Amino acid sequence: MPSKAQRREAITNQLPMVTKLLKLQDDKAGPQRRKETPTGGKAVPNHEDLENYCPKIIPTYAAPYHDGTITYGGYSDIMVADEHFIVRIPDNMPLDAAAPLLCAGHVAVKFAKAFGCKVTVISTSLSKKDEALSHLGADSFLISKDADEMQGAVGTMDGIIDTVSAHHALMPLIGLLKAHGKLIMVGAPDKPLELPVFPLLAGRKMISGSGIGGMKETQEMIDYAAKHNIKADIELISADYVNTALERLTKADVKYRFVIDVANTLKQA
Amino acid sequence: MPSKAQRREAITNQLPMVTKLLKLQDDKAGPQRRKETPTGGKAVPNHEDLENYCPKIIPTYAAPYHDGTITYGGYSDIMVADEHFIVRIPDNMPLDAAAPLLCAGHVAVKFAKAFGCKVTVISTSLSKKDEALSHLGADSFLISKDADEMQGAVGTMDGIIDTVSAHHALMPLIGLLKAHGKLIMVGAPDKPLELPVFPLLAGRKMISGSGIGGMKETQEMIDYAAKHNIKADIELISADYVNTALERLTKADVKYRFVIDVANTLKQA
Repeated sequence: MPSKAQRREAITNQLPMVTKLLKLQDDKAGPQRRKETPTGGKAVPNHEDLENYCPKIIPTYAAPYHDGTITYGGYSDIMVADEHFIVRIPDNMPLDAAAPLLCAGHVAVKFAKAFGCKVTVISTSLSKKDEALSHLGADSFLISKDADEMQGAVGTMDGIIDTVSAHHALMPLIGLLKAHGKLIMVGAPDKPLELPVFPLLAGRKMISGSGIGGMKETQEMIDYAAKHNIKADIELISADYVNTALERLTKADVKYRFVIDVANTLKQA
Repeated sequence: MPSKAQRREAITNQLPMVTKLLKLQDDKAGPQRRKETPTGGKAVPNHEDLENYCPKIIPTYAAPYHDGTITYGGYSDIMVADEHFIVRIPDNMPLDAAAPLLCAGHVAVKFAKAFGCKVTVISTSLSKKDEALSHLGADSFLISKDADEMQGAVGTMDGIIDTVSAHHALMPLIGLLKAHGKLIMVGAPDKPLELPVFPLLAGRKMISGSGIGGMKETQEMIDYAAKHNIKADIELISADYVNTALERLTKADVKYRFVIDVANTLKQA
């Protein structure tokens, strides 16, 4: 029978790259241990604890395992993992609100506020303004399609986390940065974006990307979230709602993440 | 009569952005002082000594000065500058070989070797190999058009300084970087380059740019060059050779920089 140990990140628009079970079972026993990254924490010279860059990584979802079977990620009813690749969720953190912390964009606002930053949410649409300010706790809101608003904010930002997966212009975002400012890409547009080079030179600005953290970073993130009461906003569903959820995802009709309650679904079946 | 104080960077394919006289005159006297960046070293919050980012900067070449006159940069026969914006060239550094250190790409190989780095020169053409290895002191040479050579070097580099001003592909260079590797742009292609985003995410790689340093950084660079005997490779010319030099520049017929000997040209005239 599945226990809490088998509840894990499920429907998101990104794939988890490293096994992240949500809670270690008390007995920790398993019939077999899978080592997703055989080289452990030595994937990057001089960077311990960055298993996420191991060239032999086996993604937990839709990837062939050593024995030829395909990994099913969050859609599995049971999963066995090496304890090195398990993140412990602190007791005061609800499992359903913790799951998307492993792979979600809107929590960046909550983390940045907890870090003490002044946070501006940038969006194409005014419709998100109230929620950004009152619910997520942002300090201000900027409509990227409003040329005057954007011009007024030129050169004011230390960093921008760009969560947009669609094709979009980088130039206006680079313009918002101060000298030495950082534009961090976490969305993955499928076609290359246009990169204007001179604005990078003139302000020694930086564009970087980040997909996922190593196990140590991930544990630190979860522990920090628990300490500062940072939770993802979710809608809990049962497995038989998955197809409907996928339809709603294409219409952006969810605030902000679906989480599948696999254990209760299986109990009811 | 012009003295050594008026010798400075001249024909390059980039424009100096901050006044950099090559040697302070002994008496330091001048009829008038020009403050190119009125805010001094406070252009970037928390970054002292970065006058190069001052929003009120007046480039020394082809820019309107406060009184409406146009700055002539290295083509002037006399220049007056605030001593804050003057770099002192150490006594053991020849002035002509020092000038391009303020704005030249090939010396990056010499600096990197002095830093103790393993250096690979990447070029489209095999013709530069011998010179890169024997004269500049690079450890290895990579032909960017050779797919096999490039594939063999994937994931091996900590950083790349990209000096190419022409339109070119970033993807092969990003591929050469290790995780957390840095691609630093110092050339300025006039049209945007194609930026593939996913490779940045997958390796947390970074693309940045740098145009010029602040006065403190520039003085440190010159002092380091003098200590480690780093000189630019130059061809010294007189002012009446400028048009011929520009023609040769378009044919890439110079190793590596022309330097105009303004003082001696004026003496002869």
